Amino acid sequence: MALDAYQKREFKQVGTRPNRPDGVDKVTGRAMYGADATAPGMLHAKVLRSPHAHARIVAIDTSAAEALPGVKAIVTAADFGVPEDAFLLDVQDHCMAREKALYDGHAVAAVAATSLAAAKAALNLIKVDYEVLPHVTDVDEAMKPGAPVVQAGRAFENVPAGMSENVTHHCEFGHGDLDAGFAKADHIIERSFRTAATHQGYIEPNACLASVTSDGRADLWVCTQGQFFYRTLCAAILGMEASQLRVTASEIGGGFGGKTMVYMEPVALALSKKAGRPVKLVLTRDEVFRATGPTVSSSMDVKIGMTKDGRITAAQARLRYSGGAFHCGTVDFGAQAAFAAYDLEAVQTLGWNAMTNRPKESAYRAPGAPLSIYAVESVVDELCQHFGLDPLAVRLKNAADKGTKSSYGPTFDQIGLKATLEAAKAHPHYAAPLGPNQGRGLSCGFWFNFGGNTCVSLSVNTDGTVGVTEGNPDIGGSRASISLMAAEELGIPYDKIRTIVADTSSLGYNDVTDGSRVTFAVGLATIKAARDAVQKMCSRAAKIWGIDEDAVEWVDGAAVPAGPNAGKFPPMTLAEIAAVSAETGGPICGHHEVNADGAGVSFGVHLCDIEVDPETGATKVLRYTVFQDAGKAVHPSYVEGQMQGGAVQGIGWALNEEYIYGADGKLQNPGFLDYRIPVASDLPMIDTVILEIPNPGHPYGVRGVGETGIVPPLAAISNAVSRAVGVRMTELPMSPPKLLKAIEAKG
Amino acid sequence: MALDAYQKREFKQVGTRPNRPDGVDKVTGRAMYGADATAPGMLHAKVLRSPHAHARIVAIDTSAAEALPGVKAIVTAADFGVPEDAFLLDVQDHCMAREKALYDGHAVAAVAATSLAAAKAALNLIKVDYEVLPHVTDVDEAMKPGAPVVQAGRAFENVPAGMSENVTHHCEFGHGDLDAGFAKADHIIERSFRTAATHQGYIEPNACLASVTSDGRADLWVCTQGQFFYRTLCAAILGMEASQLRVTASEIGGGFGGKTMVYMEPVALALSKKAGRPVKLVLTRDEVFRATGPTVSSSMDVKIGMTKDGRITAAQARLRYSGGAFHCGTVDFGAQAAFAAYDLEAVQTLGWNAMTNRPKESAYRAPGAPLSIYAVESVVDELCQHFGLDPLAVRLKNAADKGTKSSYGPTFDQIGLKATLEAAKAHPHYAAPLGPNQGRGLSCGFWFNFGGNTCVSLSVNTDGTVGVTEGNPDIGGSRASISLMAAEELGIPYDKIRTIVADTSSLGYNDVTDGSRVTFAVGLATIKAARDAVQKMCSRAAKIWGIDEDAVEWVDGAAVPAGPNAGKFPPMTLAEIAAVSAETGGPICGHHEVNADGAGVSFGVHLCDIEVDPETGATKVLRYTVFQDAGKAVHPSYVEGQMQGGAVQGIGWALNEEYIYGADGKLQNPGFLDYRIPVASDLPMIDTVILEIPNPGHPYGVRGVGETGIVPPLAAISNAVSRAVGVRMTELPMSPPKLLKAIEAKG
Repeated sequence: MALDAYQKREFKQVGTRPNRPDGVDKVTGRAMYGADATAPGMLHAKVLRSPHAHARIVAIDTSAAEALPGVKAIVTAADFGVPEDAFLLDVQDHCMAREKALYDGHAVAAVAATSLAAAKAALNLIKVDYEVLPHVTDVDEAMKPGAPVVQAGRAFENVPAGMSENVTHHCEFGHGDLDAGFAKADHIIERSFRTAATHQGYIEPNACLASVTSDGRADLWVCTQGQFFYRTLCAAILGMEASQLRVTASEIGGGFGGKTMVYMEPVALALSKKAGRPVKLVLTRDEVFRATGPTVSSSMDVKIGMTKDGRITAAQARLRYSGGAFHCGTVDFGAQAAFAAYDLEAVQTLGWNAMTNRPKESAYRAPGAPLSIYAVESVVDELCQHFGLDPLAVRLKNAADKGTKSSYGPTFDQIGLKATLEAAKAHPHYAAPLGPNQGRGLSCGFWFNFGGNTCVSLSVNTDGTVGVTEGNPDIGGSRASISLMAAEELGIPYDKIRTIVADTSSLGYNDVTDGSRVTFAVGLATIKAARDAVQKMCSRAAKIWGIDEDAVEWVDGAAVPAGPNAGKFPPMTLAEIAAVSAETGGPICGHHEVNADGAGVSFGVHLCDIEVDPETGATKVLRYTVFQDAGKAVHPSYVEGQMQGGAVQGIGWALNEEYIYGADGKLQNPGFLDYRIPVASDLPMIDTVILEIPNPGHPYGVRGVGETGIVPPLAAISNAVSRAVGVRMTELPMSPPKLLKAIEAKG
Repeated sequence: MALDAYQKREFKQVGTRPNRPDGVDKVTGRAMYGADATAPGMLHAKVLRSPHAHARIVAIDTSAAEALPGVKAIVTAADFGVPEDAFLLDVQDHCMAREKALYDGHAVAAVAATSLAAAKAALNLIKVDYEVLPHVTDVDEAMKPGAPVVQAGRAFENVPAGMSENVTHHCEFGHGDLDAGFAKADHIIERSFRTAATHQGYIEPNACLASVTSDGRADLWVCTQGQFFYRTLCAAILGMEASQLRVTASEIGGGFGGKTMVYMEPVALALSKKAGRPVKLVLTRDEVFRATGPTVSSSMDVKIGMTKDGRITAAQARLRYSGGAFHCGTVDFGAQAAFAAYDLEAVQTLGWNAMTNRPKESAYRAPGAPLSIYAVESVVDELCQHFGLDPLAVRLKNAADKGTKSSYGPTFDQIGLKATLEAAKAHPHYAAPLGPNQGRGLSCGFWFNFGGNTCVSLSVNTDGTVGVTEGNPDIGGSRASISLMAAEELGIPYDKIRTIVADTSSLGYNDVTDGSRVTFAVGLATIKAARDAVQKMCSRAAKIWGIDEDAVEWVDGAAVPAGPNAGKFPPMTLAEIAAVSAETGGPICGHHEVNADGAGVSFGVHLCDIEVDPETGATKVLRYTVFQDAGKAVHPSYVEGQMQGGAVQGIGWALNEEYIYGADGKLQNPGFLDYRIPVASDLPMIDTVILEIPNPGHPYGVRGVGETGIVPPLAAISNAVSRAVGVRMTELPMSPPKLLKAIEAKG
């Protein structure tokens, strides 16, 4: 369909705001989360964790713990094999330390017992003989030659002189002649930035219930963003085949990328296998912070040249990310995303990853992008200040558009950046007056979005209702969005449809709920599965009418004789066709399997006003508006929710959230009292403006919307704060002590 | 495929005997049955039952029970609507008495409370004001004019004079000139028979866990033979749409037809809806006997004429079945099956159903057929004795065959009756000598078999394993059989496949696991789904090779270039194609939905030797051999298991099992101490001989095998006993008191 047709297409249900099907269950506490499952004979598990940031495990003596009444199984790394695949080895080693404990909180043993009390008591009886080693938790320190080596033999090839073998990865993106570009600039700013690691802060701690039978078949109930990927990982680590393991995703109390990786699920399975009974394992908040996956921490240099009329002539970024004690490639995303909003003649981004004695990084909404874009957008803002240029006008002047060769390679198709910038420019927020100690910041944001492997099946019930079976946990209202797309395509009301998230044995493989892929890819597969069912229903109607099936069309939820047969028979509705399906061939289902490409990239612009108390360094977000291109907004409320949620998480990252490591390498704030996420009373209402620039890669023009929203806040807030206090801030979070120090330094 | 090709087809995996995938779980107690599920905040339910066989419910006062601490909800019939559909009304009324309690044990109220103790205590506080009415539990008594009317207004049209309005149904089958036929006979025998109701005797009492949320969506975990049918019934009774209710079948500890009907599931759902919490409801054995569905009881007259050389000239049966306090059409099956084994010129079967004050009949393996065939085969045996003819020779002389116009209408296609009789004739058992007080009995048996609505999906995992998703609870090893057929078709080993039973939201509609339909229909759909996946895998290989997809064949689990491309590329195995599926288009699945017809009818012949102790009337089964046509035996061990299980249940029915009602209309033996099913020590090894006469309606020639085995034992045992004691027995069960009485009457 031509884009014009998209834009003109009138949707009947897509774009409305019905209640989500999981809402009541969640509000009333009936929804079943990770810790809610039980099984007869179930054991409770606890994990023993390293108190050291870096230590060789000389010996583990579990004999006293094993003798404790109620203890049914203890596992250590010795109970696992050593996977040949480096990625899998990292995953497993993160779940259970093998030769060394690599960070404070690293699992070293686990116990399953008949009660939680017995399991806890057993932990105290496990004797671990540690040889404590020097540690490093800072990315810049970790990259220096002579730094304590977190894991030997993991360095990438040809580590440059002057770097530690902690550096596992290097990447480079860009095009054009940098020197020539910088030579054209009227002014060049180069600055260094640092950001702390943050955690996704999901409300529901990781939890699972594992049950392995003595013939090696297993079931896993788990809070996850991707039951199929968990199956792949757990099966590989346990030495099982995929078909032997059935993984069911519980409802999920937040994930944001953090529940795309196994942390204790293979341990629970190993305990169950050893004990011969089901095992429940629920992490505490302390364990979630210490031993699941936070973001990378970073140290970055950005250099941008600009003409006095606001044209960027050249841009360069050097990104140093640490993804914890293992190899991590997130810096690739940061490097690719850094300058994506700009149409540049000369651009280069260099990235390095360094290992530190921290838990392994996991995805967190647009992983890697918020950092690099924070640095880039800070420098652009400073250049605007330098020239006295309007920061929106400068973005518009340099904005990437359809046909732009992006800074990371591909040429953009239709994108919504300029429309988003124009919307921000026209919005009353941008013109509103500011008071003393207040600043206004803005930033662009970008995320790639992803499609991926997706399977959807759809059953037409004989009472005219429809079941949609998809395989991606619903982390943001996707059951509602998918039901809406099925309803649109089938022409029946939304409430006649129930979309469920299937377990791994009930549907083909689905990639993880990540990359903002679900509304795009599952939606696409749902539309195609619905069309498959529609084709079958037209065929059934044709059979009943005794006409050729090509002579039947589907209009408003009914088969209608068409062409030469038009008007010969009254339309047959979906319910009427379904009611007699047994007589016309059997149940009617639609299916679609695809590795979806065509996920359109997504841009957003955030605008915020901040007031800084010069006496305390405390900040207050006064006003915040998110402008984002959603492609077609299937369920606008949930699009807005994603935009608001991303903004709030970014605000937390910018202002308060951080992993604080002591000199001893121990995490000092593993709890929500000391790791401060924004709460409702900290924030104004986050205003939202949805732009709808259709994605040509989706039948309805849908783009992913979940991740882009977390990208701009870091720079938007930093730019607002910098303008409010008159000092360019270069480190996150901008917590009151840091701000106060900057204000005092200015004098 | 021509039948010759079937018979010559060499199977590689079908016909082998691998372990069943659910075996270890069941043996070790890990399998999750109906009562094994729990949910947070779950309540426990108990049902208050009528102590009267027939009573008007004047009033129910639940106020004292409601005031009891811990009681969260009480429901009575007033909490349900009055369905317009007569069938649905019966189903609901059986679950919860509306105006009258219709039998001893009929549910009148139910309580959900925080503990089972509180629920039980609450039952004692519910005051029911009953007006006790006259009752009738015997079928012949119930048919007499003036009998207590169980439910008014249910009689079928034109009830003949001399019948009560308890008679709800009449049927007639047959063809030919009966009078002319009987005139040709050298001898005619007419006898009357009676059989007691029996229960399926499944080991696992009915159990469920229901959870209804406040927006009307619901989940039901239940021990059932058909989660989709339970969904249909429960949704209709609760006034929900099918898509709102997700039903998951637990493992099942026996069903045999008895778990094809809801008894307390709608009650559990209603309690959950009212209480706003999950509700578990588990029946006691007493409740299972009193208030679930046993078989019909019967009274029958059979008249058969025979020439002295053993040719049957005419046959007539008059069947009076009682299916309990509601309408029941089981007599149709009995009437159709009665003479199915015979090629007859003149045959007539008349059937009536009468209501009695008993629980509503439910299916039990080949429902209705064992009774009528018991009566017919008894008379045939007596005629053989009369003429001194060999009973096998007489069956062979009169046996139905391909082309026979059956006694119930259809003309048979290829059937295995003659082959089965020949096998019995040639078996050493038939020629073995008998001792004093011993008798040998034989009987033919027949069952229709069924196909029905069936959906199967199949996923090819990237590690080369395969998941099969089917929708029928596994009551007899079907996961193994289905995996075998998938393995055969895909050309990969059995243990690479895991077949699971999906819930109602994860797959299209599947008819109940009944009619011996699963291995036939689900097998057929599995083979077709596998072929769909094979076609897709060939297409992927063609894409990789860059050749036309029609130029690829599937051989031994691999795509092979064929025709002009033969030998150009090495074969690609399923695992190799699956491993790169993401790069060739996405996940690979196969699907098939069908309302399967072509289920081939099934015949069996049972041979048994019995010794009767003339002093006590005690019987001992000395030797028992089952001959049955299985079409292709997919997993011979489970075919044998079905044949043995059917025989044993039939032996119990013949010798000991019966519902004993007192003059007060109360069931006197609702427990396994007094309702005596055969145990291992009562029985010899049941020998089996599988015949494989391919069913042309199935790609592998499969027929259903589960039900036929219960049909012949009643007559086989009765004929053996009659020959052992020299008295023609005409009533089941032949328990020692009855036998002793018959022996003493003979003198």
